[in-house]
Amino acid sequence: MSDSIKYLLGEDRIPKTWYNLVADLPTPPAPVLHPGTGQPIGPDDLAPLFPMALIMQEVSQEREIEIPDPVRDVYRQWRPAPLFRARKLEKALGTPAKIFYKYEGVSPTGSHKPNTAVPQAFYNKEAGTKRITTETGAGQWGSSIAYAAQHFGLEVDVYMVKVSYEQKPYRRALMQTYGARCVPSPSIETESGRAILAENPDSSGSLGIAISEAVEMAAGRDDTKYALGSVLNHVLLHQTIIGQEAMEQMEMADAEPDIIIGCAGGGSNLAGLAFPYIGRNLREGKSTRVIAVEPESCPTLTKGTFAYDFGDTASLTPLVKMHTLGSAFVPSPIHAGGLRYHGMSPLVSHVLDLGLIEARAYGQLECFQAGVTFAKAEGIVPAPESTHAVRGAIDEALKCKESGEEKTILFCLSGHGYFDMQAYTDFFDGKLKDEPHDQAAMDAALAKLPNVVAQ
Amino acid sequence: MSDSIKYLLGEDRIPKTWYNLVADLPTPPAPVLHPGTGQPIGPDDLAPLFPMALIMQEVSQEREIEIPDPVRDVYRQWRPAPLFRARKLEKALGTPAKIFYKYEGVSPTGSHKPNTAVPQAFYNKEAGTKRITTETGAGQWGSSIAYAAQHFGLEVDVYMVKVSYEQKPYRRALMQTYGARCVPSPSIETESGRAILAENPDSSGSLGIAISEAVEMAAGRDDTKYALGSVLNHVLLHQTIIGQEAMEQMEMADAEPDIIIGCAGGGSNLAGLAFPYIGRNLREGKSTRVIAVEPESCPTLTKGTFAYDFGDTASLTPLVKMHTLGSAFVPSPIHAGGLRYHGMSPLVSHVLDLGLIEARAYGQLECFQAGVTFAKAEGIVPAPESTHAVRGAIDEALKCKESGEEKTILFCLSGHGYFDMQAYTDFFDGKLKDEPHDQAAMDAALAKLPNVVAQ
Repeated sequence: MSDSIKYLLGEDRIPKTWYNLVADLPTPPAPVLHPGTGQPIGPDDLAPLFPMALIMQEVSQEREIEIPDPVRDVYRQWRPAPLFRARKLEKALGTPAKIFYKYEGVSPTGSHKPNTAVPQAFYNKEAGTKRITTETGAGQWGSSIAYAAQHFGLEVDVYMVKVSYEQKPYRRALMQTYGARCVPSPSIETESGRAILAENPDSSGSLGIAISEAVEMAAGRDDTKYALGSVLNHVLLHQTIIGQEAMEQMEMADAEPDIIIGCAGGGSNLAGLAFPYIGRNLREGKSTRVIAVEPESCPTLTKGTFAYDFGDTASLTPLVKMHTLGSAFVPSPIHAGGLRYHGMSPLVSHVLDLGLIEARAYGQLECFQAGVTFAKAEGIVPAPESTHAVRGAIDEALKCKESGEEKTILFCLSGHGYFDMQAYTDFFDGKLKDEPHDQAAMDAALAKLPNVVAQ
Repeated sequence: MSDSIKYLLGEDRIPKTWYNLVADLPTPPAPVLHPGTGQPIGPDDLAPLFPMALIMQEVSQEREIEIPDPVRDVYRQWRPAPLFRARKLEKALGTPAKIFYKYEGVSPTGSHKPNTAVPQAFYNKEAGTKRITTETGAGQWGSSIAYAAQHFGLEVDVYMVKVSYEQKPYRRALMQTYGARCVPSPSIETESGRAILAENPDSSGSLGIAISEAVEMAAGRDDTKYALGSVLNHVLLHQTIIGQEAMEQMEMADAEPDIIIGCAGGGSNLAGLAFPYIGRNLREGKSTRVIAVEPESCPTLTKGTFAYDFGDTASLTPLVKMHTLGSAFVPSPIHAGGLRYHGMSPLVSHVLDLGLIEARAYGQLECFQAGVTFAKAEGIVPAPESTHAVRGAIDEALKCKESGEEKTILFCLSGHGYFDMQAYTDFFDGKLKDEPHDQAAMDAALAKLPNVVAQ
């Protein structure tokens, strides 16, 4: 028998608390500002959009926040998620590195997104919400909130970035199967959508525009709240079960990661895996490296500005300090729709600013190539988003091959690509191309950044 | 905390042997006959198509056959597969029945097929095979043998039923990702394919035709063997790990199934779950009911004849005694491509003939409706094939609701539908219809049955 390749935990090892990195940071992240007054906002300012339980998590300084039992009950359908040693990939690469991956594709919707969709739906149900509005890129988030809302008996309206709505009809069908309503964005249902369409009737949409639409619809109705699948502190908080489980599984494997890698669109799967390790670095003086990988066409962390900006295109959200390409920036329509966001989680931006993580960008083609290499070796086809993490892990492993170092690499395989096979078909058919970042569009968008003096 | 809904076993509980029902049957299945002589064939007659290790399993009378360690090593990527109690479905139906399902969609290709693809690839590798030819309907089998062959370094040519090749491009892309070559069948690569196309250039194909093509290509080359994803004894044998695991998990759940349900195309997932229970019935005098569910458009078990027939359309295979609609029968192009086979496993046919199982047929629409009901309740979207088992389970649960009986139902959720979302989209859009069986076509095909006196 070969050594073990899969590290499973029993259901009793689903974490009982979420981990809040803010408690361990040397400096707190910059406050969220009111777009009108420029003053820090309080919990009540967010009440039209979110139930108070989530708002309190958003601003919490506590290190550990208890996971409610009904949430853990739903988690038990697929959690703890498995951690694998990628022995066949190591062999295919001829690397002395050890490669591990935490596989979040075992969830009902095939990605890490239900980790936060379930508690968000739960707290909304508890608060009496009837309907949730949200946006989605590739549909991983939209299908996940549809799944979770169905579980707790809530209605869902999903504003789906138009290019993904057209490229990815199958996640749309999944949302419909769960009973959600799915609207291509920009739509004519909202003022924000109509304004965009007036300017550009052929707009392929963006996460920023879709957020505007979902926020507008929630703000206008008492029984309706808004849900976001990444970026915000409470979303990252919920994802920390990934890293907590992985830490225990790496101990089972008698291994200690030197490098942790995740793809970063809004930042939640990266944070989910990495934040517990960053917290441990800070508390125990360890030096586990963390690398965020983003697409070259939307290089928020590697080429963006760390500044106050709106989270959406129509300037409806509060101002947050984050790495941004400017809320007017519309990324090119690459297949990794979940990574097409002009901004980045303020908390991930803050830890990059503090030097606690690194960032790099890859082109679309080298990521798909890595996805195919991984699939051939390990049998699992990665989601286009996740191929960025795979690319990062493979490159680190190849560096080890050159140097002879036996580093241990751990990455988050945030989802499977079984809804995204059209992207692979296009890749095989030579129809995909690299979409380098558009410097002129970025400059134009950054020139429109709101005029806020950082606190 | 609610009661448990998921029953997991540790990796050490992956069965160490496959279970061979033949050892416990009161009468053996009818022998396989040579199409030329009408005499029972011996192992050597099959040697051009299969490695000897698989042939010996095909004719084995042993109750237990050891699973090689390298096969169990690959199984460990996803096995033991989870068993779930469908509490939310029970609640949605308002039934006093307990519903359990064994979920085989956790495999890398999303169905039960890798359970046999892996040992088939392993034994071929051991025997020095370089290339495997096979057929596939919906692509579950083709992608699984592509996955397994890639693992053991073998080439694969997959003849894919043309209607599925067109309806299901994503499983095709999956095969390509694993490195397999995928050919729409009927093709011009084989005599069998060219003969069909000469008669009907618009042929949508069938499993029977695709088998002819794959068999023809394997028989003509020394380094090439043929692999079948269902029907044969050794395939059903490999699938019995499903039932062996389920039996242990049902004990964990402190439950005993009254009724076991599986969909049946060639019969392998049904047999995989049910045969260990049928064997126990026979050995211990128990009376667990087993129900095979098939589509109305291809009603092999419910309307076919139990007779000697060819396994393929071009009459290249040996003659097997089975429930058949006639090897010339081409089923209508329903979405459950894996259930579109004119015949049925000889062993499943035999146990139906012995009265050890029951069979029923459902229309396509009522199956998709059941699939949506299941997805809304349990979060997992079933493959079109698997919706037949879901429909059967729901109907039994609704009978319990009428009668007030608290029966325990266990069914095999053989795969997820994440590659089949086009079918769900068509269902929602009202584009699907029921395809009742075509009595005239059946009569015509049955009139062509080979003239063999059963032994």
